[in-house]
Amino acid sequence: MNNFTFYAPTYFAFGAEQENNAGKYVRRFGGSKVLIHYGGGSVVRSGLLGRVKASLEAEGISYIELGGVHPNPLSGLVYEGIELCRKEKIDFVLAVGGGSTIDSSKAIAAGTVYDGDFWDFYQGKPVTKALPIGTVLTIAAAGSEGSPDSVITKEEGMFKRGASGEALRPAFSILNPVLTQTLPAYQTACGISDIMAHLFERYFTNTEDVEVTDRLIEGLLSAMVHEAPKVIANPDDYQARANIMWAGMMAHNNSVGVGRGQDWASHDIEHELSAVYDCAHGAGLAVVFPAWMTYNMEHNVMRFAQVASRVWGCPMDFMHPENTAKAGIAAFKAFLKSIGMPGNFAELGADEKDIEKMAHNACYGDKRAGAVGGFVQLHEDDVKAIYRLMV
Amino acid sequence: MNNFTFYAPTYFAFGAEQENNAGKYVRRFGGSKVLIHYGGGSVVRSGLLGRVKASLEAEGISYIELGGVHPNPLSGLVYEGIELCRKEKIDFVLAVGGGSTIDSSKAIAAGTVYDGDFWDFYQGKPVTKALPIGTVLTIAAAGSEGSPDSVITKEEGMFKRGASGEALRPAFSILNPVLTQTLPAYQTACGISDIMAHLFERYFTNTEDVEVTDRLIEGLLSAMVHEAPKVIANPDDYQARANIMWAGMMAHNNSVGVGRGQDWASHDIEHELSAVYDCAHGAGLAVVFPAWMTYNMEHNVMRFAQVASRVWGCPMDFMHPENTAKAGIAAFKAFLKSIGMPGNFAELGADEKDIEKMAHNACYGDKRAGAVGGFVQLHEDDVKAIYRLMV
Repeated sequence: MNNFTFYAPTYFAFGAEQENNAGKYVRRFGGSKVLIHYGGGSVVRSGLLGRVKASLEAEGISYIELGGVHPNPLSGLVYEGIELCRKEKIDFVLAVGGGSTIDSSKAIAAGTVYDGDFWDFYQGKPVTKALPIGTVLTIAAAGSEGSPDSVITKEEGMFKRGASGEALRPAFSILNPVLTQTLPAYQTACGISDIMAHLFERYFTNTEDVEVTDRLIEGLLSAMVHEAPKVIANPDDYQARANIMWAGMMAHNNSVGVGRGQDWASHDIEHELSAVYDCAHGAGLAVVFPAWMTYNMEHNVMRFAQVASRVWGCPMDFMHPENTAKAGIAAFKAFLKSIGMPGNFAELGADEKDIEKMAHNACYGDKRAGAVGGFVQLHEDDVKAIYRLMV
Repeated sequence: MNNFTFYAPTYFAFGAEQENNAGKYVRRFGGSKVLIHYGGGSVVRSGLLGRVKASLEAEGISYIELGGVHPNPLSGLVYEGIELCRKEKIDFVLAVGGGSTIDSSKAIAAGTVYDGDFWDFYQGKPVTKALPIGTVLTIAAAGSEGSPDSVITKEEGMFKRGASGEALRPAFSILNPVLTQTLPAYQTACGISDIMAHLFERYFTNTEDVEVTDRLIEGLLSAMVHEAPKVIANPDDYQARANIMWAGMMAHNNSVGVGRGQDWASHDIEHELSAVYDCAHGAGLAVVFPAWMTYNMEHNVMRFAQVASRVWGCPMDFMHPENTAKAGIAAFKAFLKSIGMPGNFAELGADEKDIEKMAHNACYGDKRAGAVGGFVQLHEDDVKAIYRLMV
């Protein structure tokens, strides 16, 4: 276990109708003039945006709106949002939507109070200052509602990159599982895939003696395996939605990832897919992660066997642990297929002709130094080989 | 899963030598004149107090000291601390020690800015305002370093009662596992017992559909079962100490207990023991909890069977789940014995002649309404019967 600091001062309000308290929480956390940031028409059509606005009005808080966030959020709208916030002297950004909307809000919140180009943060500069952010979450997936992270795609070059910094943790997040009940099964499954990927990125570590975080991660994975089939079978299952929603936050606020090296190559490899094909991030991860596992299993067979046994219930083959490890990967693939996720390039809409370019971009694009991943350092040829396992 | 709010804005600095940053964190969280609160001579003899003071001096922060916290902290010293803080215009309370020192610091921090008697908070009034608190933790046990709770014993009547409120969450907590390496095995084991009790109090619930928090609690319990024997065998096992230290925080900051009813009768029943016999809280819990489990198993046999299977690895007896449930309780008792904890009244130094009085006090003392416990409501006769199971 490594040394670490951990600071997660987000106020969570969890349960039905909590969005009606948005105004109260904006006031509590210092907002008086708010940018409400959102995506497409669903938050409008469902009446959610109206309820949030009413709660701000009830508190006498003024606001302006900026919609149009794209599922893989783009830098163009961030620049627009920054300009708007400066012009209107906004002091609080309220995201109403999913991970993309929250990430775009975080970029705007950081960029508004920064003299340079906000993209600096997505090239590795830590975010130390930002307008306070609140969220009303509509999909359990990205974990951005409790994380210090944001991912944005730069339109010039279509580089999808992440920024991080304590200032990006939301001041408050409203988690109402009812809001996720109207999601189509495919988007729900993408969220499940994303949550599990956040857990696996933390699970595959070279740090020794991490029993407590291992067990927490395995616990969250087990809960996902238990709850996911319920929401796929019955989208209105409030209780399963609620369990998944809290798991999604816990998977990514890093309380279960402290003190250990982490991997994150699968995210880097996936980001190229969603940047090029505009596929859903969770769907891309469902294709990437099993391939990454297969390619890297030999780096630590016993770690793969451990999760196979503890999460997937695979019998331990003590004489041949690699069989248990492989059975775990197969169980994960079967699980992803059972919830409707794609399993290869064709099902994702990807094309093997782009492998060379994507592998190069993943390793070298936008100032990267030639490798990705913390568990195993992967170079361009490794990444190509992993993409080929998905074909 | 029930609705909830969750807000845990404590900054954690984890690892060797982090106490040298105490001054930096006091400054960051607004302190300029500090009360350093501690217990006996060990923090002085070990040099810890000196290092903490040096770090305050390096930041130009002034301080006064108040030592003498008792292992079951008493109201008398709290009143003294409150008077001192008011007189010296203290704006920050820094606890250097274990749960007792932190709890005493919380009581002082709340009482200093309250017009009435601080004991009001320990009779149920929520704490909404307190001086900011920092902690330098020296034992993994109470979880007070990340919790909104405090337990104090009132000398008139020897009532041991708890207070709670968001204002009691420490602003920062320094967790250096090295500081716990000098603890005697008995105190280490008491801490382990306390941590596991915090998990069980949350585990035994009547709330349905709580898979995610069930799994997180089971994960922390499993990690404790894995790490505890290591530190008992080798007190200098830094890695096991580190795992237990983070587990102790996670067990009680309530991120794994949100959205579910909890029990807490075992704590109430134990508090009478430590108030009367001044035994260590963890040792008392080691005697109380298995008896509480035995008495209440039939309330939900399958919940007891679940933890027996998932944490203790007991084979599931599908035709007679009560056998699995009982095997889990037996495994817990055997575990507690293996780490050196007492198993009955005699080993604890308790006397059955006090059962009547303790049962009455637990249910009616200091304005209680006649029952304890959330999983099963226990009245005076139930509490007597549970005490008798410990004889």
